[in-house]
Amino acid sequence: MQFASDNWTGAAPEIVDAVVREAARVGAAYGASEIDAAVEARFAEIFEHEAAVFFVATGSAANALALAAASKPAGGVFAHAESHIVEDEIGGVEFLAGGARVIPVEGPLGKLDPAALKAAVARFVPGSVRTGQPVAVTITQQTEMGTTYSPDEIRTIAAIAKGRDMPLHMDGARFAYALARLGISPAEMTWKAGVDILSFGATKNGCIAAEALVVFDPVLARDMPFIRKRAGHLFSKSRFVAAQFDAYFRDGLWLRLARHANAMGDRMRAGLAVVPNAREAWPTSGNEVFAVLRKADAERLKSAGAAFYDWPEPHGWNAGLSDDESIVRLVTAFSTRPEDVDAFLAVLRG
Amino acid sequence: MQFASDNWTGAAPEIVDAVVREAARVGAAYGASEIDAAVEARFAEIFEHEAAVFFVATGSAANALALAAASKPAGGVFAHAESHIVEDEIGGVEFLAGGARVIPVEGPLGKLDPAALKAAVARFVPGSVRTGQPVAVTITQQTEMGTTYSPDEIRTIAAIAKGRDMPLHMDGARFAYALARLGISPAEMTWKAGVDILSFGATKNGCIAAEALVVFDPVLARDMPFIRKRAGHLFSKSRFVAAQFDAYFRDGLWLRLARHANAMGDRMRAGLAVVPNAREAWPTSGNEVFAVLRKADAERLKSAGAAFYDWPEPHGWNAGLSDDESIVRLVTAFSTRPEDVDAFLAVLRG
Amino acid sequence: MQFASDNWTGAAPEIVDAVVREAARVGAAYGASEIDAAVEARFAEIFEHEAAVFFVATGSAANALALAAASKPAGGVFAHAESHIVEDEIGGVEFLAGGARVIPVEGPLGKLDPAALKAAVARFVPGSVRTGQPVAVTITQQTEMGTTYSPDEIRTIAAIAKGRDMPLHMDGARFAYALARLGISPAEMTWKAGVDILSFGATKNGCIAAEALVVFDPVLARDMPFIRKRAGHLFSKSRFVAAQFDAYFRDGLWLRLARHANAMGDRMRAGLAVVPNAREAWPTSGNEVFAVLRKADAERLKSAGAAFYDWPEPHGWNAGLSDDESIVRLVTAFSTRPEDVDAFLAVLRG
Amino acid sequence: MQFASDNWTGAAPEIVDAVVREAARVGAAYGASEIDAAVEARFAEIFEHEAAVFFVATGSAANALALAAASKPAGGVFAHAESHIVEDEIGGVEFLAGGARVIPVEGPLGKLDPAALKAAVARFVPGSVRTGQPVAVTITQQTEMGTTYSPDEIRTIAAIAKGRDMPLHMDGARFAYALARLGISPAEMTWKAGVDILSFGATKNGCIAAEALVVFDPVLARDMPFIRKRAGHLFSKSRFVAAQFDAYFRDGLWLRLARHANAMGDRMRAGLAVVPNAREAWPTSGNEVFAVLRKADAERLKSAGAAFYDWPEPHGWNAGLSDDESIVRLVTAFSTRPEDVDAFLAVLRG
Repeated sequence: MQFASDNWTGAAPEIVDAVVREAARVGAAYGASEIDAAVEARFAEIFEHEAAVFFVATGSAANALALAAASKPAGGVFAHAESHIVEDEIGGVEFLAGGARVIPVEGPLGKLDPAALKAAVARFVPGSVRTGQPVAVTITQQTEMGTTYSPDEIRTIAAIAKGRDMPLHMDGARFAYALARLGISPAEMTWKAGVDILSFGATKNGCIAAEALVVFDPVLARDMPFIRKRAGHLFSKSRFVAAQFDAYFRDGLWLRLARHANAMGDRMRAGLAVVPNAREAWPTSGNEVFAVLRKADAERLKSAGAAFYDWPEPHGWNAGLSDDESIVRLVTAFSTRPEDVDAFLAVLRG
Repeated sequence: MQFASDNWTGAAPEIVDAVVREAARVGAAYGASEIDAAVEARFAEIFEHEAAVFFVATGSAANALALAAASKPAGGVFAHAESHIVEDEIGGVEFLAGGARVIPVEGPLGKLDPAALKAAVARFVPGSVRTGQPVAVTITQQTEMGTTYSPDEIRTIAAIAKGRDMPLHMDGARFAYALARLGISPAEMTWKAGVDILSFGATKNGCIAAEALVVFDPVLARDMPFIRKRAGHLFSKSRFVAAQFDAYFRDGLWLRLARHANAMGDRMRAGLAVVPNAREAWPTSGNEVFAVLRKADAERLKSAGAAFYDWPEPHGWNAGLSDDESIVRLVTAFSTRPEDVDAFLAVLRG
Repeated sequence: MQFASDNWTGAAPEIVDAVVREAARVGAAYGASEIDAAVEARFAEIFEHEAAVFFVATGSAANALALAAASKPAGGVFAHAESHIVEDEIGGVEFLAGGARVIPVEGPLGKLDPAALKAAVARFVPGSVRTGQPVAVTITQQTEMGTTYSPDEIRTIAAIAKGRDMPLHMDGARFAYALARLGISPAEMTWKAGVDILSFGATKNGCIAAEALVVFDPVLARDMPFIRKRAGHLFSKSRFVAAQFDAYFRDGLWLRLARHANAMGDRMRAGLAVVPNAREAWPTSGNEVFAVLRKADAERLKSAGAAFYDWPEPHGWNAGLSDDESIVRLVTAFSTRPEDVDAFLAVLRG
Repeated sequence: MQFASDNWTGAAPEIVDAVVREAARVGAAYGASEIDAAVEARFAEIFEHEAAVFFVATGSAANALALAAASKPAGGVFAHAESHIVEDEIGGVEFLAGGARVIPVEGPLGKLDPAALKAAVARFVPGSVRTGQPVAVTITQQTEMGTTYSPDEIRTIAAIAKGRDMPLHMDGARFAYALARLGISPAEMTWKAGVDILSFGATKNGCIAAEALVVFDPVLARDMPFIRKRAGHLFSKSRFVAAQFDAYFRDGLWLRLARHANAMGDRMRAGLAVVPNAREAWPTSGNEVFAVLRKADAERLKSAGAAFYDWPEPHGWNAGLSDDESIVRLVTAFSTRPEDVDAFLAVLRG
């Protein structure tokens, strides 16, 4: 009953097999091997667009280095006030993007409110050294609250960014879950909707450590090899990351894994809808489920071996909590079994 | 006949097995799992000293973040003029250590010359804002030239560093080879000789990606969790790095692998001593062999499928090259087979 | 009728005379002359406390470098949401303090609300790499809204800071006005109330360019010479800044100038209280007056040659603006003449 | 007998008068006043080229911020090994230019050797993340050794820089002395010879604090307002710097002052040529004279009240020092009187 996080998981057998195979091979270091090149080409195929691909160690690194590529002196980066960048990555952008300021912007359930974004951007008077330079907008797909931007919503955000010559960055730590749910193409969820640079995370969805920056805008890609190298994120045995991505994309494994995680989320949501003593805190559609539990039930679940985290009430959201209730986050993953969900619900039901 | 680099290798079976096992497990992220804690404790045992341990993505990251922990404003870091930090990691220390300057110091065959170091340090007048603050000395064990510092030599460098309140950092990308050759304990090669912080590399010697900062001085460890996090080097599935180290240390695997690599280096050295058309460029004792080859022979070897790099003549060293000769670097590894070396020598002999 | 800003002014005759005298002298550069030392000693006398003093070019530099001295990796600096640091100095702290994040905290009319500060600080879980390190609190005396912290209010803020081992920084760009109004000693307004480091501005109050960091905590002073030098803020002819401060402090000139500016503010406030077509937007007590004007009157005043800036309604403040009204900021200074204020009021009255 | 440095001087009467006049005026802050605009236009006239002009606090700031504008990730800046940037400004470029490395390049008597520069640049393999990006070349006119680049020599350096798409920066802390000596136009010594960005120093030559970045290349100027602001170098009462430059350029004052300083240097050189117990250490032509003195004579001069600094033997130069001799630097200035030089020589002669 591990619902703490999708990064508490192990790795999918296909991913492990790829690593095992790669371990028996020899190849050029620092991204210069054949499989590195093949994977970069595979990204271009999958996204139906030329793309420069850079493996990095973590999603936080991907985010900060993406924004470093967009950064300008006295720059402001616009991010959701409850995003991972704002809440969990303090100093990452500020340091790696050379002194950029992160400007928190509100919006319902993890999604940037276009009006709030417009207002925040408008505070940056063009050419004003007093207010600084707007340099990038970043969104998260799926968001920290388990909600999903539609392509139209992304397009709206992108238009605001482009109106001030800012690139749009997507933090895709949970990219696959969103894509599987929306049932659209990677292209439709990214560059066709205005995304210029993407943190593409595969670690949560079955890999060991596989994070890539996918850069659609060649201008943003230009200095990236140096930005990555300088930050110590150029793996020597880069082939092992490439091998994970190779397996991840092969025969649609990544979407199969994500669909499974989503289905387990659905199973949890369905269960919560019928248990008498709990409810969804707000609607979600991916592998993250937020539940209002009685505190006593939460304790009881933990005693029974369930792992999950408490979660604060999102800005501007009223989950109608009574004093003896709290919100918890339940994260399913590629490796979650139906019986795990059922066991959780059974304990919950009491 | 892959002698290009030990980071062109795959991974040792024991390491791969550990990863496979870890893939089937579940555990807390960000270094909070049991195996993370166990591996940190294992480092302390192996080094016979309390040590804070921080996994990072690459050896370059380990170096720069170690020096970031030691850094002070307007600081100077003293490094060998031909070290990896100076030659291959431009901007790493300067950026990640917040504007530190790397001061190149000469010395024979990759080892800092104590007199040259003293002179370089002496240029920093105590308290002078004009000259800046001396903040750290870094050495490489084994060096880029395949040479090895003796504990006494390390102690001499450490004394110079300590004389100006500087910590001594060791870039141990090739730590195991040196240790295996010297036949001393990890403690004797590090803190007992004055090393305060160590970049401990295992990637080259049989791992997939396993690099750790080992911090003996608690003052240097204090901010390291934040220094690492900010730079995007805190792995979510940290357990997979821990699992590699766990296997690496188990039953002395790491030293067994290193001894093998060294033995293959010895086999190459012995071969070079007897072929008529080549010679060692300078004496080495680890897994790196530097050979003077006739350019025609080098071409011939490449045509026969041998992989290796050209290497410049070290500062202050005269390899007695004639016009038709050049220096090449031949790197053996845990996975090098005797027949690989023999095949190389056979082709060389012609 | 220049009420745009106190930094639109020239300089007081006594300050100018000091510069003229210094121009005829010769002395050591980079702060090593006799007058540099004498002024540092004078600061200690005036503040009744040992203090390290560092001249810098601007108030923004003083703020950012003060916070740089306090900075730690992944650090957060707590500042009022409408402070100069937040509104006008984007990237200053983030860049010069090595990637620190500025955390905006609310509070009425420019003053930090202790409860809001406590809550913001509490988000930083001790030792948590996720939330980061709380590193400093900064307040502005007088605030951007023309309000003044009492010593007790400062003490309350300081206690919150000290509760998490954070130093308290004071942005004293308008230090003298506040001090003159409160009628207390410099010591009472700073270190006795818990201030550890002060941006002491004299430029607005009659100098040409005289800004100093006054550091009461020796730990914060230790690296400051290097922090300042590295940022290019060590004047070669430092003597000319020292000469301005020397004159500024001589025979109480600084307080005389500030009292005059405050009196001109009072004259403006008194006038606004009796004109029928305007009013104070909120109560102030220093050299900044915020007035609600009919837009037509504001235009008329500008046509008549008055210089002043529009000002937004402060967070959480309701100035009761009707559609045809706006808020303007009227800044008096050492050089404002009573007849300037009277002329402004006469035009306003119509 | 002050020959320690031209930054030990006071200020020229015309400069002081301009400051006195400006003190009685009122004007917009932050460079938006009329005199700020007029001075920027004056720079363009004097240099016969469009130029963006940015006042900063110090020459060190000008240098580092100029190179910040040119900087790229993992970048290398090529500077003379004995330049002020290398010897006296540690951490300035590294920090303010976001992690750039300063690459010391040798050359006779403070001037970059084109062959050495070419070799240093050639180490940066195009596109190689291992070697990094070459980003700028910086030269000093006049050099730290008192020597002067001819326009042809500058052109040669510029061609090497341009061959790798690097801008050429000139540290012009002693610009006027060189210009006055060469008798050419400012244009000929800068952009016509390939200089893209200039640190234009006036402080040493009669001003109080007047340093400007003069940017001929609009690409380098684009972000400079933000680069300067972020570093705390945008003066509020910018008008006072503008007033100094206005007076500096009026009626050729700057060249008159520089010619005087050079003439005093000539007087010193002539004197040294005829005293029996001293000699020039190497030929110079500006306001810096380097003399070989007997140590006993140097002590005697200091006892008699002469101020000057010892100077190390330049790299690669043999001044033929005997054991009882040392090199001293004698700096003349706008304010040096013939009788000061004569008194020095009289004491020296004994």
